Amino acid sequence: MKLLEDRIRAEGRVLPGGIIKVDGFLNHRVDPKLMQALAAELRRRFPDPGVTVILTCEASGIALGEACAEAFGVPMVFAKKAKSDNIEGGLYKSEIFSYTYKKTVTLIVAKDWLSAADRVVIVDDFLANGEALRGLVEIVRQSGAELVGIGVAVEKGFQPGGQKLREQGVKLESLAIIESADENGITFRAE
Amino acid sequence: MKLLEDRIRAEGRVLPGGIIKVDGFLNHRVDPKLMQALAAELRRRFPDPGVTVILTCEASGIALGEACAEAFGVPMVFAKKAKSDNIEGGLYKSEIFSYTYKKTVTLIVAKDWLSAADRVVIVDDFLANGEALRGLVEIVRQSGAELVGIGVAVEKGFQPGGQKLREQGVKLESLAIIESADENGITFRAE
Repeated sequence: MKLLEDRIRAEGRVLPGGIIKVDGFLNHRVDPKLMQALAAELRRRFPDPGVTVILTCEASGIALGEACAEAFGVPMVFAKKAKSDNIEGGLYKSEIFSYTYKKTVTLIVAKDWLSAADRVVIVDDFLANGEALRGLVEIVRQSGAELVGIGVAVEKGFQPGGQKLREQGVKLESLAIIESADENGITFRAE
Repeated sequence: MKLLEDRIRAEGRVLPGGIIKVDGFLNHRVDPKLMQALAAELRRRFPDPGVTVILTCEASGIALGEACAEAFGVPMVFAKKAKSDNIEGGLYKSEIFSYTYKKTVTLIVAKDWLSAADRVVIVDDFLANGEALRGLVEIVRQSGAELVGIGVAVEKGFQPGGQKLREQGVKLESLAIIESADENGITFRAE
């Protein structure tokens, strides 16, 4: 998606270790107009009229999740990353490894909010190793819901998450796929 | 705000210890139409044309934050709750006690995204003891930005956070203020 690629070229920064910093518009400061444009594009790529829920996980997926929920006209559910007092029993759970925080975390979703009657589009801001998305897919499977597909803003194409999901037959739509990122700049995979 | 009070009456549940569960539409599953209505009401209550940023904190403030950013036509910044590898130096920091997780956490905002030139509306889904909002106000003060006010979806009026903020002279707009919540039901403060 040219709008997103242009924004990443203009404002993204590459840090050592292949970390791509887009925190000025995607995942720390968030540009709501961009979120709405990304959500409209994901709605276009997932035209299925039967989608019932947008699923994402805290924290940085939530802004795009909210914009997608508005665009699809359905609720957004966000998986939480730890058990708090406000969540009772009756949970779907999936353990993932967080490369950001370098530890295992448990994604949880209350069974009240996802069931076999649902048709789910998962969204997230970033796809690198794919651990968060693997956990969300596992939760969809536990619930018996149908996974319509996964929409991601930025995929790091040089890390294995995207390929693993595609090999499983998941319909994965990444709005910008970064092929390489280093001191020479950022290169995108052709659409 | 009658729309929100009606929704809390219809779908909210009271757990032991005064915990009010509204996770079916506010902070686990999120109703995007409700978020847009709350955001429009907050825009009406903060008509200041000079607002430059919506500030909230992860995770459950982000959906309302995104909707408010859309309504105000400005970026949303969400404070993060721990240092990750993706955030370099140059941070505003504020320590708060999380009653949800029963531990001290540090709110952080990159200095890149908040400065003395900003005019800030803070938003959050819930106000009880007010620790998260105290931390966000502290970060606004560190940045030198002007605090226009604070907008909250649900205030627990029987806990001290709201009173503390009002005593400091902060313009606080809570869209529903719960006076009492027990097995007999939920009572709201008259507007």
